[in-house]
Amino acid sequence: MTVYKTPEKEFNFLLNEVFDYASLAQLPGFEDASPEMVASVLPEAAKFFEQIVAPTNQPSDQQGSKLVDGKVKIPDALEGVYPQLVEAGWTALSGDAEYGGAGFPNVVGLAVQEMLQSSNLGFSLMPMLTQGVVHALDLYGSDEQKQTYLSHLITGHWSGTMNLTEPQAGTDLGAVQTKAVRNGDTYLISGQKIYITWGDQEITENVIHLVLARTPDAPEGVKGISMFIVPKYLVNADGSIAERNDVKPVNVEHKLGIHSSPTCTMMFGEAGGATGYLVGEEGKGLVYMFAMMNAARLAVGHQGVAVSERAYQQAVWYARERVQGAVQGVDGRAAIIHHADVRRMLMQMRAMTEAGRALSFKAIFEEDRSFNHPDEAVRAASAKAVELLTPLVKGWCTEMAMETTSLGIQVHGGMGFVEETGAAQFMRDARILPIYEGTNGIQALDFIGRKTLRDAGQGMTALAAEIQADLAEIGQHSELHDLTAAVAEALSQCQQGAEYVFGHPQEAGGIAYNYMMLVGNSVCAWLLAKSAAAAQTALNAGSSDRFYRQKVATARFFVQQVLPRNGAYLAAIKSGQDGIMALTEEDFEVA
Amino acid sequence: MTVYKTPEKEFNFLLNEVFDYASLAQLPGFEDASPEMVASVLPEAAKFFEQIVAPTNQPSDQQGSKLVDGKVKIPDALEGVYPQLVEAGWTALSGDAEYGGAGFPNVVGLAVQEMLQSSNLGFSLMPMLTQGVVHALDLYGSDEQKQTYLSHLITGHWSGTMNLTEPQAGTDLGAVQTKAVRNGDTYLISGQKIYITWGDQEITENVIHLVLARTPDAPEGVKGISMFIVPKYLVNADGSIAERNDVKPVNVEHKLGIHSSPTCTMMFGEAGGATGYLVGEEGKGLVYMFAMMNAARLAVGHQGVAVSERAYQQAVWYARERVQGAVQGVDGRAAIIHHADVRRMLMQMRAMTEAGRALSFKAIFEEDRSFNHPDEAVRAASAKAVELLTPLVKGWCTEMAMETTSLGIQVHGGMGFVEETGAAQFMRDARILPIYEGTNGIQALDFIGRKTLRDAGQGMTALAAEIQADLAEIGQHSELHDLTAAVAEALSQCQQGAEYVFGHPQEAGGIAYNYMMLVGNSVCAWLLAKSAAAAQTALNAGSSDRFYRQKVATARFFVQQVLPRNGAYLAAIKSGQDGIMALTEEDFEVA
Repeated sequence: MTVYKTPEKEFNFLLNEVFDYASLAQLPGFEDASPEMVASVLPEAAKFFEQIVAPTNQPSDQQGSKLVDGKVKIPDALEGVYPQLVEAGWTALSGDAEYGGAGFPNVVGLAVQEMLQSSNLGFSLMPMLTQGVVHALDLYGSDEQKQTYLSHLITGHWSGTMNLTEPQAGTDLGAVQTKAVRNGDTYLISGQKIYITWGDQEITENVIHLVLARTPDAPEGVKGISMFIVPKYLVNADGSIAERNDVKPVNVEHKLGIHSSPTCTMMFGEAGGATGYLVGEEGKGLVYMFAMMNAARLAVGHQGVAVSERAYQQAVWYARERVQGAVQGVDGRAAIIHHADVRRMLMQMRAMTEAGRALSFKAIFEEDRSFNHPDEAVRAASAKAVELLTPLVKGWCTEMAMETTSLGIQVHGGMGFVEETGAAQFMRDARILPIYEGTNGIQALDFIGRKTLRDAGQGMTALAAEIQADLAEIGQHSELHDLTAAVAEALSQCQQGAEYVFGHPQEAGGIAYNYMMLVGNSVCAWLLAKSAAAAQTALNAGSSDRFYRQKVATARFFVQQVLPRNGAYLAAIKSGQDGIMALTEEDFEVA
Repeated sequence: MTVYKTPEKEFNFLLNEVFDYASLAQLPGFEDASPEMVASVLPEAAKFFEQIVAPTNQPSDQQGSKLVDGKVKIPDALEGVYPQLVEAGWTALSGDAEYGGAGFPNVVGLAVQEMLQSSNLGFSLMPMLTQGVVHALDLYGSDEQKQTYLSHLITGHWSGTMNLTEPQAGTDLGAVQTKAVRNGDTYLISGQKIYITWGDQEITENVIHLVLARTPDAPEGVKGISMFIVPKYLVNADGSIAERNDVKPVNVEHKLGIHSSPTCTMMFGEAGGATGYLVGEEGKGLVYMFAMMNAARLAVGHQGVAVSERAYQQAVWYARERVQGAVQGVDGRAAIIHHADVRRMLMQMRAMTEAGRALSFKAIFEEDRSFNHPDEAVRAASAKAVELLTPLVKGWCTEMAMETTSLGIQVHGGMGFVEETGAAQFMRDARILPIYEGTNGIQALDFIGRKTLRDAGQGMTALAAEIQADLAEIGQHSELHDLTAAVAEALSQCQQGAEYVFGHPQEAGGIAYNYMMLVGNSVCAWLLAKSAAAAQTALNAGSSDRFYRQKVATARFFVQQVLPRNGAYLAAIKSGQDGIMALTEEDFEVA
């Protein structure tokens, strides 16, 4: 296992040199989050995660969370870590100041979130889900509900969970069968939920479940689904903890990865019904859940960046340590980092990770603006940008993570296949990312359907205009003309892709994935070119910091070795859906 | 866990309709392997593997092989299976008849080998390694050695292992330090070997280790390495088993996958030295080992096909079982196989698996011809083709397997991440394939170096000529013009790639991987087009067998959705090595 080092300089670069954090910090609500303040906060966070959380990663994978006598037992390595995290306030960094949060922009929270995710991906899910619950209650909870739950959740003294999936209802949430029967002011909830991330644990005083359930007379399908708060322990009027509610974990899954996260089967109402409190109105559960889910999708996308970063760091460490064979220009036997093919793999990991990070930061920047900008038109435009970018962040960054973590194993050779080395864990952990919070197939359908077709291409047009404007600016650096030319071509490919989509909306299902990857890849190339321009500006101003030279080289590598995949995505789109649907269901049987 | 069904019809199609098995069966040595005989043998094999071996896959993954009191304990599910395999003679199918084999062509053995690999990948490694030892002894062993070992190995009563790797000597075998000291007619071997697949077990009467070691006065590097036979039990002059040799397993690795295969650390000579017998001449160990390794590389490539086939079958089963959401044209809630994006994933798995299988069968067909054809010129040409195709089979098919097995998980959604489902095992198992028997980086270097540059392009030219000739034939089917056009373009891309290679031999290291993938992808497209032509011939002759229609559809899907990646490979090649090597070693540190 290797040491994890936070890419702090990269965070600062993105915040201040690529995305103009200073302008964000001037928005109302961010008065206490000046660039100077951020610059002093991040090193503290880095120290905490590097020293306290990162070393838990491998031991908590090896031991895993388990169900022991009806209680979730977390790995020994994580014992005592969560209270320190809460104490230090890192999960509350971008929480609402009214409820005990520190009120920093989400984009600063994102940097700290990445540190947590890189340190221990499975562990990071607990604060992530809690934030999702905060988000939903903040938007849709009653004042009383906000008063009862929000400060405990934001400070992290209580945790939150999302209870959506049932055995017959995964992607298709309309099929939810969990029951909610009115009982005076409250409801009695009964049913079984599966795949509940951090569904229970003994490390917070309470666990607040948000549960999708169906009232007796509700219509079938998604319109009959309501959302309920079901606390593990009921809460007295004075805010103190009361008796245990009728909800419990009955199983913890044996999974491929993220072993520190207990993925629970939760049983509600075995003893007559769990007490639940309606959020908002009946029948709107799915709408509310999506608010929470969209935030989670962005966070999951960034998990792809975070696990890639750590896989990259481990691969670099190994490639510099491992001596094997001779290389021209190196005395004696050479570390494998000197072999060109190993270098190719490391550059690929590096370039894709930086690309995903730039994409994710861009989305969260827009999110901050969409919440806090005083100009309604700016808020609306930014909200639209977030909507458009969300499936790209989730889809592209998590597909990318599968590639980088697998490359990380490959760099290790045979040693990568041996679990003790730690490289395999990153791929095992990453494998859930293209699946949960909406599979990447669902992301692609969202992107091509809601975000392109139903939107009549407005979002895509606005994005294209922004890229065009940026290209003009980047193009002022003559050293980067290869990058601007490549991004311009990518933009044209996106437009060709979109044209096909609008010409063949009935084929959306079959071409969605390639369309999402085409646009995701192109946006990443743009943002790396933008980063390269910021770096070039610093170099031209006389900086001798190698960091800037690296940014240009990494962007160039992406454009040369990853961006050309666009041609394949576009060809697949243009070949349409007929080839995909050419066989009948029976044709898939082995002849 | 799903039932495994052997793709028998596909085997027969490849043998008889794509590659003209009848002409192979007429070669000297194959008199008893008529197409009729093969047609009667394969169904028997299918029954055996489907019923006896395939059900062991998941339980043996869950339990794994372990070291207990100094002995390797195989999973319970595998107890008694190996003796049945030997009894039925399936591992001896293409073994030399002189030593108890059945004398079938290797290409028939390949079909049976795939059944074994699909049934239990980790288990299949034991016969695979044994075959490698047979191959090496057959080529380089003395008559006495052949008499002593070959029949026991070919029938499978004894197993064989390859002992190459040491902690400091992986890819770089010149660094081997294990010692061999002459002791009369034999040698005393001492040292430690790691990553020894099926390094020991208690299910065969003896284990024959082929060990690379260094004699005291040997020159440094690869020229000082010799190969020794080190049996677990010494063998008396009458062939009976004598006393235990000084070799033992001291560790079994905890690995990501192939858990049924015990990957051992082997200790030689702790009690004074293991008795070893020199194979051939001193100093030629590496040459001999490569003979064995090349055969193993082809087998590992086919492992990629085999594990993809099984992942595909499981994904299809799940996609037909799992009901979720509504689809236009399907009553009620639809099985997910009706969703276009799921269909895309299944088609991708199917097309890539069939492509890899066609590539692998092609290589083994050439291998059979290279051994048995009476015309020396044909033998030489076929041997050259095998040399050229070997890194493609190993490299392309194993990269492909990572993609298909990961898609298999994706088709399962959340269920794919839960180990009980079985989909995750295929990806875990597959992850070793791009690594062992020479990493794919090494395959790529072999392909661009030995097989392209050092060969002055002769092999590539011969291959291109064969493809051209075939295209003329395939092109007679006007229905397939889209396929021939695509393959012709792919061939031109390969030629452009090769031109860059010859123009920039000093960049070979950096561009090797993309060059290997470009040619591998193109050869696959050619062989699928060839398959489609064979199928079209049957359709035009009036066949209504849906199998033929499927072959055409699958080839077309590959050409539409996979082959366009060639553009990305070619662009990466043409961008050269500068971008790959732009950073210094220190630049890879986190800033």
